[in-house]
Amino acid sequence: MAELRREPIARRWVVITKDPIRGPNDYLPYKPPYERPEPKGPCPFCPGNEEMTPKEIFSLRPEGTKWSVRVIPNKFPFFRIEGDFDRRADGMYDTMEAIGAHEIVIESPEHQHLFATMAPEQIERVLLAYRERLLDLKRDVRLQQVLILKNYPGIFNHHPHSHILAMPVLPRGIDDEIGGALDYYRRKDRCIFCDIIKEEISRKQRVVLETVHFLVFCPFASRYPFETWIIPKVHSADFHDLSREMTADLAGAIQSVFASFHSLLSDPPYSVVFHTSPYQSRFHRDEYHWHIEIRLRIGLREGFEWATGFFVNPTPPEHAAAFLREVI
Amino acid sequence: MAELRREPIARRWVVITKDPIRGPNDYLPYKPPYERPEPKGPCPFCPGNEEMTPKEIFSLRPEGTKWSVRVIPNKFPFFRIEGDFDRRADGMYDTMEAIGAHEIVIESPEHQHLFATMAPEQIERVLLAYRERLLDLKRDVRLQQVLILKNYPGIFNHHPHSHILAMPVLPRGIDDEIGGALDYYRRKDRCIFCDIIKEEISRKQRVVLETVHFLVFCPFASRYPFETWIIPKVHSADFHDLSREMTADLAGAIQSVFASFHSLLSDPPYSVVFHTSPYQSRFHRDEYHWHIEIRLRIGLREGFEWATGFFVNPTPPEHAAAFLREVI
Repeated sequence: MAELRREPIARRWVVITKDPIRGPNDYLPYKPPYERPEPKGPCPFCPGNEEMTPKEIFSLRPEGTKWSVRVIPNKFPFFRIEGDFDRRADGMYDTMEAIGAHEIVIESPEHQHLFATMAPEQIERVLLAYRERLLDLKRDVRLQQVLILKNYPGIFNHHPHSHILAMPVLPRGIDDEIGGALDYYRRKDRCIFCDIIKEEISRKQRVVLETVHFLVFCPFASRYPFETWIIPKVHSADFHDLSREMTADLAGAIQSVFASFHSLLSDPPYSVVFHTSPYQSRFHRDEYHWHIEIRLRIGLREGFEWATGFFVNPTPPEHAAAFLREVI
Repeated sequence: MAELRREPIARRWVVITKDPIRGPNDYLPYKPPYERPEPKGPCPFCPGNEEMTPKEIFSLRPEGTKWSVRVIPNKFPFFRIEGDFDRRADGMYDTMEAIGAHEIVIESPEHQHLFATMAPEQIERVLLAYRERLLDLKRDVRLQQVLILKNYPGIFNHHPHSHILAMPVLPRGIDDEIGGALDYYRRKDRCIFCDIIKEEISRKQRVVLETVHFLVFCPFASRYPFETWIIPKVHSADFHDLSREMTADLAGAIQSVFASFHSLLSDPPYSVVFHTSPYQSRFHRDEYHWHIEIRLRIGLREGFEWATGFFVNPTPPEHAAAFLREVI
């Protein structure tokens, strides 16, 4: 069972995982995730090896018996559905069990697929699976926030997959974002994300792509080189409200964006997160706007970021957007 | 000139550096800093090559003309002393010039020195240089916060060095920490760091080392495997108040801690930050307590951290401290 410990000064939550506990030798050699070789042996995410994974939670089987997208519980979850919070003091500190959910979305039967090379129809199926899972998890009232996260390449398995993380507390990053959005709404009676969309469309210089329903742009204060956001142009608080028509449009946008990263930056490692409204809202549906943030894992200054909470980016977003527009 | 842009939603500051602007090819190949080869050619930080660096700001020359520690401005600074803030709106966004200071402390004439293998007397000289620079920078009333940061190995040069970063705004990480410390003080009339020191000394299980003046421990909610803090046992708000006797004691503690990382974890990459009170304080000297935080750059989950603001740590601090005590 993993434990949620609250750092008492800045009050961040930390998940301390305990099965297995990692000792000094488990960290050697010091390779970043995107340089790790693939584990040896059969891939548990490939068709035919379904019995190697925990029991399937959900799947899409458009051609009858063969699955095209499959959702399973993570074998080594950060958060677990079973059990009680058991919130308690540990001396002067606060701790509780890491209750929640941690699911894996296997995005394709093909081991070699990438968002950059996948058919938009397959990306659409992945988005439909995300939506189904978010709607289902919403029924568990213990859960505050669900995030969809994809790391490419995957840390322990290179078969294309993403994580659905349902958490019992609001993570700091989302809390900061929501706090800022609420504050803006109180002052202006407008959604800050809607204002950003209007500003970027009128200014053009940071726009990468505009589709019927979505804007793709490099944000003004991009924390990372080539940081890119995808956001619905019409206000929408929850990712799970996505219509079928918008899903198809979004799948096309995602495919184009990743194809352009692939060609411009030679298949870079990246992380993607879907930010959507918390389940247990302290606010109405007008203040927060769901969106996708993409961070290329290149040129990292993580010592500086870690030490200061400041970000340093040597590629201004106006330049990043111009480079991306050229290849899209 | 670098620009400070404020991300309008969560309101974080981002430094956009512009000389040089990095395009797509500048990021290839994707190597983490600790895997980069040393740049070719003579090392500008080695004795005899002093004319390759910008003009010296400060040095310690205990043996007459030869320097043992040298401080210079960074050739590619994130923050610059010269110029005006020029705070302004850019459409709906906020921006200003990145005024501040960015200095490099060359920690030794020896290119191959490490904290793990340096004589404590040399580490003591480095600490004296930090202190002198912090006292001098304090006279510039435009500066809000100074942080000392060391990345090992260095990103662009492997000669042992650290950064002194003087910033015109309080970085988010420090702001969160100070907010929490002030809140605790208001409720308890006690410094939260002093309470943590008492708790850890009485519980023992997370203590790595106790010297006359300092406690070395793995914090309860360690965000990273083997995260280690060094903190003065008697309350002190400012690093620059360090006495000569405490400096010698601290140098010994630093040497022991890095020697134990070196032997236990086979020369791991790491970052170190000195957190000290902001120059322009919104509070008295009783609430904040300066300290050193050490993060080993191993087993990084940076996709997850970036996406959620949550941390996942598979080495509980009780185990980390036990491993370190064994080799110290």
